[in-house]
Amino acid sequence: MTEDTELLERPEPTPENDAPATPTLRERVKAAVDARDAEQLQALLEPLPLSAALRQLLALSADDRDRVLELVPTELAAALVEEAPHAAATELVERLEWDRAAEIIDVLDSDLQADLIGDLDSEDAEAILAELEPEDAADVRRLVAYEDDTAGGLMVAEAFKFPVTATVGAVLRSFVDEEQDFERYRGQHPYVIDTEGRPVGVVSLRGLLVAKRSAKLGAIMIEPIVVTVDTTLDDLQDLFDRHSFLGLPVVEADGRLVGVVSRAAIDAAALERAESETLRLQGVVGDELRSMPTWLRSRRRLMWLTANIVLNVIAASVISAYEETLAAVIAIAVFLPMVSDMSGCSGNQAVGVTMRELSLGVVQPKDAMRVWLKELSVGVINGLALGVLIGLVAWFWKGNVWLGAVIGAALALNTVLAVSIGGVVPLLLKRLGQGPAAASGPLLTTITDMAGFFLVLSLASLLMPYLI
Amino acid sequence: MTEDTELLERPEPTPENDAPATPTLRERVKAAVDARDAEQLQALLEPLPLSAALRQLLALSADDRDRVLELVPTELAAALVEEAPHAAATELVERLEWDRAAEIIDVLDSDLQADLIGDLDSEDAEAILAELEPEDAADVRRLVAYEDDTAGGLMVAEAFKFPVTATVGAVLRSFVDEEQDFERYRGQHPYVIDTEGRPVGVVSLRGLLVAKRSAKLGAIMIEPIVVTVDTTLDDLQDLFDRHSFLGLPVVEADGRLVGVVSRAAIDAAALERAESETLRLQGVVGDELRSMPTWLRSRRRLMWLTANIVLNVIAASVISAYEETLAAVIAIAVFLPMVSDMSGCSGNQAVGVTMRELSLGVVQPKDAMRVWLKELSVGVINGLALGVLIGLVAWFWKGNVWLGAVIGAALALNTVLAVSIGGVVPLLLKRLGQGPAAASGPLLTTITDMAGFFLVLSLASLLMPYLI
Repeated sequence: MTEDTELLERPEPTPENDAPATPTLRERVKAAVDARDAEQLQALLEPLPLSAALRQLLALSADDRDRVLELVPTELAAALVEEAPHAAATELVERLEWDRAAEIIDVLDSDLQADLIGDLDSEDAEAILAELEPEDAADVRRLVAYEDDTAGGLMVAEAFKFPVTATVGAVLRSFVDEEQDFERYRGQHPYVIDTEGRPVGVVSLRGLLVAKRSAKLGAIMIEPIVVTVDTTLDDLQDLFDRHSFLGLPVVEADGRLVGVVSRAAIDAAALERAESETLRLQGVVGDELRSMPTWLRSRRRLMWLTANIVLNVIAASVISAYEETLAAVIAIAVFLPMVSDMSGCSGNQAVGVTMRELSLGVVQPKDAMRVWLKELSVGVINGLALGVLIGLVAWFWKGNVWLGAVIGAALALNTVLAVSIGGVVPLLLKRLGQGPAAASGPLLTTITDMAGFFLVLSLASLLMPYLI
Repeated sequence: MTEDTELLERPEPTPENDAPATPTLRERVKAAVDARDAEQLQALLEPLPLSAALRQLLALSADDRDRVLELVPTELAAALVEEAPHAAATELVERLEWDRAAEIIDVLDSDLQADLIGDLDSEDAEAILAELEPEDAADVRRLVAYEDDTAGGLMVAEAFKFPVTATVGAVLRSFVDEEQDFERYRGQHPYVIDTEGRPVGVVSLRGLLVAKRSAKLGAIMIEPIVVTVDTTLDDLQDLFDRHSFLGLPVVEADGRLVGVVSRAAIDAAALERAESETLRLQGVVGDELRSMPTWLRSRRRLMWLTANIVLNVIAASVISAYEETLAAVIAIAVFLPMVSDMSGCSGNQAVGVTMRELSLGVVQPKDAMRVWLKELSVGVINGLALGVLIGLVAWFWKGNVWLGAVIGAALALNTVLAVSIGGVVPLLLKRLGQGPAAASGPLLTTITDMAGFFLVLSLASLLMPYLI
């Protein structure tokens, strides 16, 4: 037991202080799994920060992960599933026996239940739903039908609601009443609904405390801000920026209150969206974690890479068309990758700024012309600066001022082109209804590669007498 | 007036429906600024979603932006400043007269006040602080001293606190009392402090409602989870993931309660961090918006680009060393940029996955070996696939099977190298205390460019007799 006590007393692991200790922790977790020692597993994992516990779980083999989720208390298993990114959480749950999966899913909030169930194949989903309370299962079925990143997809089905004829005293008693499970509604205000189930008012805590206990809610409520199930994440972010509410009531097309979307759920969805856009910029499609099977990771990455090979062949065909020029001035081959890489970098900066301005909402697709003019001024300055710089490098390196002029002029012109394309392409893709994060980069680099190769090689062909 | 009424009744603008209308809106805003028509400006901007109103503001010249912030009601001006990203908000505020800047800053939460004041130059900051209530100014001075992305830097200075001897009735009355300004404490639980100002308890709403009004808080409180001012954003995210609180009390080293950090502030900081990492990946340093001065945008981008030119020259020197080989087999020049680009892409995928796993906390710097082994298997599969593909392209395009073999083998080997470096470099940079987002990409592509050029050209030199 001394070892365990020591472990529990250790400060939370940080990169510095657990470097020597964690192999032991990992081995202990593995030993506890092998021994099916549920108590020991709980003692090892529960004191850790959730991300550290999840790290331990994901470091195990898939079979051992199943065992951990079966052995530890349901609350801890659910917390681990909740901490895991979507795709990993789905994988963890779909491998479990249905009854255990249902136990774990049962303690999650209804929005997370729906996310998980929606990602399972239909046989697993039906089997797990059959294990839940019929009412909970019905809520989940309803939530699964809504689109991701809309109020319907982000809300919880439970709302803290009272009829318009209820008294203040009844609401205050429900705070106290164990049955009402106030914690599930944390941060929600009590919503007042009419006989059709439509939210017609919201009451503040202060309003409840100031009013007489016998007062009807209808007398102290104020008009609520209501969103519909198809309100987008962007619009929800905007509403929460503008107002200080912790939750907003969500209604169906017929006006019935069907759930509540919380500020925390919106913030989490925005963070997840930002992170998945970053990944897509780097050519990672889907939600890869290294705990996933190798063939799946490999296949997803290859899909993106093979598309990229095609684009590269197209760009390279420009070089191929000028092989004679190249053969005559072989030094040019040294600078072709530089011109294409530098232009790609300049263009990507412009893509980055446009993506950011899009996500902040300060530009819209129709602002393409204004964005282009703004990029043009930066492009001219940076094109001149970089062109002069690389021109001097080429001149002194290869001892030919004309070579410097060709490379410098090509980079200068191509920089202007690259920032123009980089600044505007995400807006055009968005206007066409495409996700700009995934396609902007490859589109940009293909065009700037082709243009860069063409500019260098055609200028060189023109000035050939001075270059050899 | 008919025009204005029509405008106010218009649905909130979306990319689809305001394309023809917004030029008019922009012109109207400009006309209202020129006419110094405060009422008209308010009527135009207030009904818009905040992001749309900010878009209108940022589309104006710097002088006109100043005028808008002077003319509109303080609450709206503050909302616009709050909606703007950090750097833009600072720029907006520092151009204003000090008294107006102080009016706007006065209505912001203290964490935002500190962010803004901290970014101003010291003369502006002092002048604005002098206009605030001495107590508020003292709070801001205190908050400015804390590091960004720690509990101290993210907390608000106002805490909803009561002495341990206060009664339940006193707390309930304070909810009702206009003075207590309950909205400022939204989502906070009442904290109970001892005579030294240390948080010794927290009381729940249910606890307050169940207890007698004459009960002392000391009798119904539970022990609070407390963080110190230097708790990091990562650790705070972990705590909020684990617990359902909407806020956590923050203490100084001496244990005194000095503020409260809210779940919403943590979520916002995490989102901002994710977005700025994306930008850094794309070579955008700082917080560029196109409303900033051209020379500033240009200079920041150039700093990053010139560093990149140096790396490119280093990589290109490998090609330069093999000019004879190139001259003999000029077709190789067609494939050099392809090999370097494809390897860069494969490596960036691995960087992306590692960055994501770092941000989720499922890998740590010491896991470099495990990450490398995981990448190796993907690298071998993808290297073989891409190598065969590009080898076939080269063979059929240039009609030489040996050329195909050289290019294919070089890409296969370089893919394995690229994913190894891409997977591990962010971990090594993090271990060295560097921000992995900014440096991983350039480091990766320089190494993979050099290795790719070297592999293609040295293999070609070896097999020269078969290539010509």
